[in-house]
Amino acid sequence: MVSPIRPTDDNARALAKSLIARARFATLSFLDPKDGGPMVSRIALVSGPDGLPLSLMSDLSHHSTALKANPLCALLIGEPEDKGDPLTHPRLSLRARAHFVRHGTSGHGSLADAFLSKQPKAKLYIGFADFALVTFAPLGAHLNGGFGKAFTLTAEDLI
Amino acid sequence: MVSPIRPTDDNARALAKSLIARARFATLSFLDPKDGGPMVSRIALVSGPDGLPLSLMSDLSHHSTALKANPLCALLIGEPEDKGDPLTHPRLSLRARAHFVRHGTSGHGSLADAFLSKQPKAKLYIGFADFALVTFAPLGAHLNGGFGKAFTLTAEDLI
Repeated sequence: MVSPIRPTDDNARALAKSLIARARFATLSFLDPKDGGPMVSRIALVSGPDGLPLSLMSDLSHHSTALKANPLCALLIGEPEDKGDPLTHPRLSLRARAHFVRHGTSGHGSLADAFLSKQPKAKLYIGFADFALVTFAPLGAHLNGGFGKAFTLTAEDLI
Repeated sequence: MVSPIRPTDDNARALAKSLIARARFATLSFLDPKDGGPMVSRIALVSGPDGLPLSLMSDLSHHSTALKANPLCALLIGEPEDKGDPLTHPRLSLRARAHFVRHGTSGHGSLADAFLSKQPKAKLYIGFADFALVTFAPLGAHLNGGFGKAFTLTAEDLI
């Protein structure tokens, strides 16, 4: 059987980075802290100052509680357009480790500025004590650029 | 702290069912068979004859291999519209157990007809030996109907 995975090239790296750069939300896959089972949520997501994913989460959310117990997660980034087959639209499945950045800790200000530059309406609640910014350190990724265009990316390919 | 979860009512059940009924794709959260870590993929998804989610998967896909090793998974169903805040758009996070229905096994024909009635272009490959239909038996769900409209649903609420 021929592998459906192509060798990673600069076009694949650029596509992966552009999917993160254009994102305004994403789907988060994480583990239930009670039983270790897979769970899923939609989250706000933009690209941070380093071009890597950046989110803003309420402490009330299931996924925030779960990521504090186990920061390993995966993000699906890249939304289909209205027209055409949604499964041919490029998307990035990124495995990552989440890191919470709370008010008053180093780096919060510049991350908050980056988040608000892309999600200005979050100004209403980004200052609340029970909201935290969340960065995602990539562990590896699978890029599906459409039919016959699959790539395996390393963390280095995304940095 | 006041719970953000409202009591489940008929409106919540109807909204959850309508999200499944309108779906043409979804996001699948599943476990890596190698290390048990969370992973995520976009999959084709429609409502089956019983109103529950139905997918069509290639044996070549990561998620197909993973679900055969461990059928526990979660689906995010309900896509944002072009306008407005994507996080206010209703979506269903459904925990489920995946079940593969292969060619020549009981029920394949009626499930294939249901899938093709909503995804007619799949006619090109639904007959391939390395494609299988996949049903999802619900274990429970979280419905987010927009700001302040969160519900916890049981499997019975969806059937």
